[in-house]
Amino acid sequence: MERFEEVVAEVRKRVEPDDDERERLQQVARSLAERAENAIADLPVEADVIQVGSTARGTWTSGDRDIDLFVRFPPELDRETLESYGLKIGHKVLPEGHEEFAEHPYVKGEFEGFDVDLVPCYHVESATEIQSAVDRTPFHTQYLEARLDDELADEVLLFKQFLKGIGAYGSDLRTEGFSGYLAELLVLEYGGFRALLEAVADWHPPVRFDPEDHGTETFSDPLVVIDPTDPERNVAAVLSPENFARLQHYARDLLSEPRESIFVPDVPEPLTPNEVSEFVADRGTTPVAIRFDAPDVVEDQLYPQLQKSLSGVADALSRRGFEMLRADLFADETAVLFFELSVPERPAIERHDGPPVHVRAHATGFYEKYEADDSYGPFIDGDRYAVERKREFTTAVEFLESDSIFDAALGVHVEKTMRRGYEVLSGDGIEELAKEFGSELARYFAPKP
Amino acid sequence: MERFEEVVAEVRKRVEPDDDERERLQQVARSLAERAENAIADLPVEADVIQVGSTARGTWTSGDRDIDLFVRFPPELDRETLESYGLKIGHKVLPEGHEEFAEHPYVKGEFEGFDVDLVPCYHVESATEIQSAVDRTPFHTQYLEARLDDELADEVLLFKQFLKGIGAYGSDLRTEGFSGYLAELLVLEYGGFRALLEAVADWHPPVRFDPEDHGTETFSDPLVVIDPTDPERNVAAVLSPENFARLQHYARDLLSEPRESIFVPDVPEPLTPNEVSEFVADRGTTPVAIRFDAPDVVEDQLYPQLQKSLSGVADALSRRGFEMLRADLFADETAVLFFELSVPERPAIERHDGPPVHVRAHATGFYEKYEADDSYGPFIDGDRYAVERKREFTTAVEFLESDSIFDAALGVHVEKTMRRGYEVLSGDGIEELAKEFGSELARYFAPKP
Repeated sequence: MERFEEVVAEVRKRVEPDDDERERLQQVARSLAERAENAIADLPVEADVIQVGSTARGTWTSGDRDIDLFVRFPPELDRETLESYGLKIGHKVLPEGHEEFAEHPYVKGEFEGFDVDLVPCYHVESATEIQSAVDRTPFHTQYLEARLDDELADEVLLFKQFLKGIGAYGSDLRTEGFSGYLAELLVLEYGGFRALLEAVADWHPPVRFDPEDHGTETFSDPLVVIDPTDPERNVAAVLSPENFARLQHYARDLLSEPRESIFVPDVPEPLTPNEVSEFVADRGTTPVAIRFDAPDVVEDQLYPQLQKSLSGVADALSRRGFEMLRADLFADETAVLFFELSVPERPAIERHDGPPVHVRAHATGFYEKYEADDSYGPFIDGDRYAVERKREFTTAVEFLESDSIFDAALGVHVEKTMRRGYEVLSGDGIEELAKEFGSELARYFAPKP
Repeated sequence: MERFEEVVAEVRKRVEPDDDERERLQQVARSLAERAENAIADLPVEADVIQVGSTARGTWTSGDRDIDLFVRFPPELDRETLESYGLKIGHKVLPEGHEEFAEHPYVKGEFEGFDVDLVPCYHVESATEIQSAVDRTPFHTQYLEARLDDELADEVLLFKQFLKGIGAYGSDLRTEGFSGYLAELLVLEYGGFRALLEAVADWHPPVRFDPEDHGTETFSDPLVVIDPTDPERNVAAVLSPENFARLQHYARDLLSEPRESIFVPDVPEPLTPNEVSEFVADRGTTPVAIRFDAPDVVEDQLYPQLQKSLSGVADALSRRGFEMLRADLFADETAVLFFELSVPERPAIERHDGPPVHVRAHATGFYEKYEADDSYGPFIDGDRYAVERKREFTTAVEFLESDSIFDAALGVHVEKTMRRGYEVLSGDGIEELAKEFGSELARYFAPKP
C-alpha cells in the first residue's frame, strides 16, 4: 500500500467510531429525544425534536461526546414564548443542565456521559425564511444526510481529524477555522479526502464554490462556499486568511511526507520561566505585557474583544515609536496582551513634520507654536517646517502604565475590566507569564505554520 | 519713517559701495582689461575683453572684491586652441594666478587686492548658440545692464544682502540657492526689494516667470524663471526646495518684524566637545559618523558627491533597521557623514516576510530554505509565510565598519577615498568632531529655518 494510504488507514482506525460506540450514541440520542417529546407533550404547543450536527450525520470522530438536539416550534410562536418553552423542555430533559446563550438561551448539560445541547428553534419551510441563525441548522443536517453515504462520511472524518491536527477546526471566533458543515461540503465537492487535499494544495484565492448554483452575493473572503440552503450566505465567512494558508501548507506537507503526526494536535511542552528568559535573550527583544482578569463573557465575545484590544494597543504603541516584532494574546483566568518590542527605549525627542511653508496661515501657526516651546527647531526640510519635540513616553511601560492607554481602541469589556485594574509586566516580570501560559509561550517562541 | 524703511536704510548704508570704492574698482577693472588686451595682441587671433558679473553691473555689495573678466574668442576657434590662448592670457594678466577648471580651464588670481577670474569663452551671436555654459554669461550682463538703472541696482543690493543673511545666496551646489543673476531678474520682475518680499510671502509653488515670454520647456522646479537670453533654461534650476521655503520664511519674518540682523549671516559659536555631549544626552539619541579625507575635487563636485553618499549610507542604515532622526555632512580638511540614530541597538532577529502561501513553487522554496536554518519560523501571518531570522548587524557601528558599507550608493570619489581608509565615530568619539566642525555642530543641534 502507498505511504499516504497507510497513514490514512491508521488514522481511520483511530477516528472511526466502532459499532458499539455508534450504537451507544444512537441509544442515548433516542432516549434524549423521547424525554424531549414527553416534555413537549406537557406544553400547549406543537413541536418536534431533531438531532443535528456531526453525531446526527455519522461524521463524528471516535471519542466525540457531543449530542445536539433541536426542538422545532411553529414559526408563528412569539420569540419570548419560544424561549421560555425551550428552557422548560431543556431543564426537564437535562435536570442537571445550566443555561447558556447563543442566538436564544438554551440548556446545556450532561446525560449518560454525553455533552448535550438542547436548543429551541423555529420550524420554517426553507432556510431562506429563518428567523434566527439556529433555524438554519436542521436544513444543513437534512442537506448532508441526503448526500453523504457511509463512505463519504468516513472521508469527512479524516478531513475533520486533519483540521483538528493542524489547529484549523472550528468556526468559533477564537479559531476562525473550518466548521464541521464547511468541512463536509468540501469533501462532498471533491468526493474524498485525498482529492480535496490535492486540489487545496493548488488553490488560488479567491476560491469559490456554489454547490446548488444559486448564489446571489459576492464576497471578498479567500474561500467562498455558498450555503446550499441559503444563497446569500458564505459558509466560510469566518475563515481567517491564516487558516486558509494553513490548510494549504499542511495539505502539501501531508501529500509530500505522509505521516500520522499531522493528524494530532500539537500541544507543546509548557515553557518554564527560565526558558522564557532564554528565548528573550536569544532574540534580543523587549517584551512587555498587560494582564487583567479575563472579562466574564462567552468565548465568542472574549476573543474578538481581546483581538480588538491587542490591535488597538499595538497601534497606539507603534504610533508612539514602539515598533514590535510580534504581538499575541493569551486568555485563561487572566487575559494577557503580549507585545514583543524591538527596542527598550526611544529617544527623548521625536520628529514632527509641519505644513509646507507656502501654506501661509497654517505654516505660520505651526512656526509660532513650536518656536515658543522647548522643541528643537522649527527648521525647514524639503518644502516643510519640521521640529524635534519632546517625546511623551520614552518607554512602552510608561505609556502602558499611563491613562493614555485608554485612548487606544479597546474592546468595551476589556476596557471595563482594565479600568478596574491591570498589571504591566516587563523585564523579569515577563517570566512570570510562564506559570499560567507556558504552552502559549512555547507556541509563541517556536512559531509554526 | 516706517520701521521696515528704517531697517532698509541702515542696511543700504552698509552694503552700497561709496564713490571711492566704485571708482577704485572701475580703475582696477580697466587696468586688467588693458593687460588682457595687450596679451591678446601677442596672439594670432581676434578677441575682445568684457567685464561680467555683479561688479560689471553695479550690483555688488560693499566689500566684494571679485572681478570677472571674460575674453571672447571667435566661435570658429577649436576648443583646444581657445583653452590654450585663454590660459596664456590669464597667466600674463595674473602672473601669480593659478589654474582652475569649470567648463574650460581658466586662471584665477589676485590683482591689487581684488580676486580676479579670467575666463575664455566664445563670442557667439546669441545665447541660444552657445558652445559652452560660460558663453552665456556676457548675454546676462548685457541684458541686465540695459534694464537695471541705479535705483533698481540698489534694490538688488538689498535683496542680495538679504539672501546672504539667510544663507540662500549662491547657485553653487553646496548652497543650492539664488544666483546673482536670478536675484536681479526677480527684483526686475517686481520693481523693488519690498514688493518682491511681499509677493514672495504669498508665493504658491510652482511659481513661473518668463520675462521675455519665449519659454519653450516645462520644469518641475518650485521656482521657474525662464532665462531672458535662452528660452530653454530655468535660471532657478539649482534652487532647492529648502531655499525656496527659506526665502518665504524670512520674507514673512522681515515684513512682520523688520530688523537688521536678518541681513547678517548667522555664524553660530562653535560647540565644545562637552556641549556636543550635552546635546546628545538631552536628545537621548545615538549619533554615529564616518570620517575620511575630503576628496580632492572642486566644491561643485565635492558637495554633490558627499550628498549622494550621505543619502546612500542613510538608506543602507534604514534598510537594516537603523532609523535616524536626522543626518548631515560636514567638510573641511576631512569630510564627515553624520547620522543621528534613534536607537543604539536592534534585536538579534528581524522579521522577513515571504510569499503568499498560495504561490506554490515560490512559497515552498521559501519554506524549505528557512525551515532548514536557525530562523524562528516559518510561520503564517495573513496569507504569507514569515520568519524571524538572525540580523546581520545589531549596531550601526558594526555595519559602518564592515565591508557592506561599500554596497551603499556612494559618490565615486567618496568611495575611492573611503577605500583608502575611514574612521567610524560613536559614543564619546562624536565629541571629537567639535574640534573641526564646532560651528556646523552648533547649527545642527540648534536648527533654524
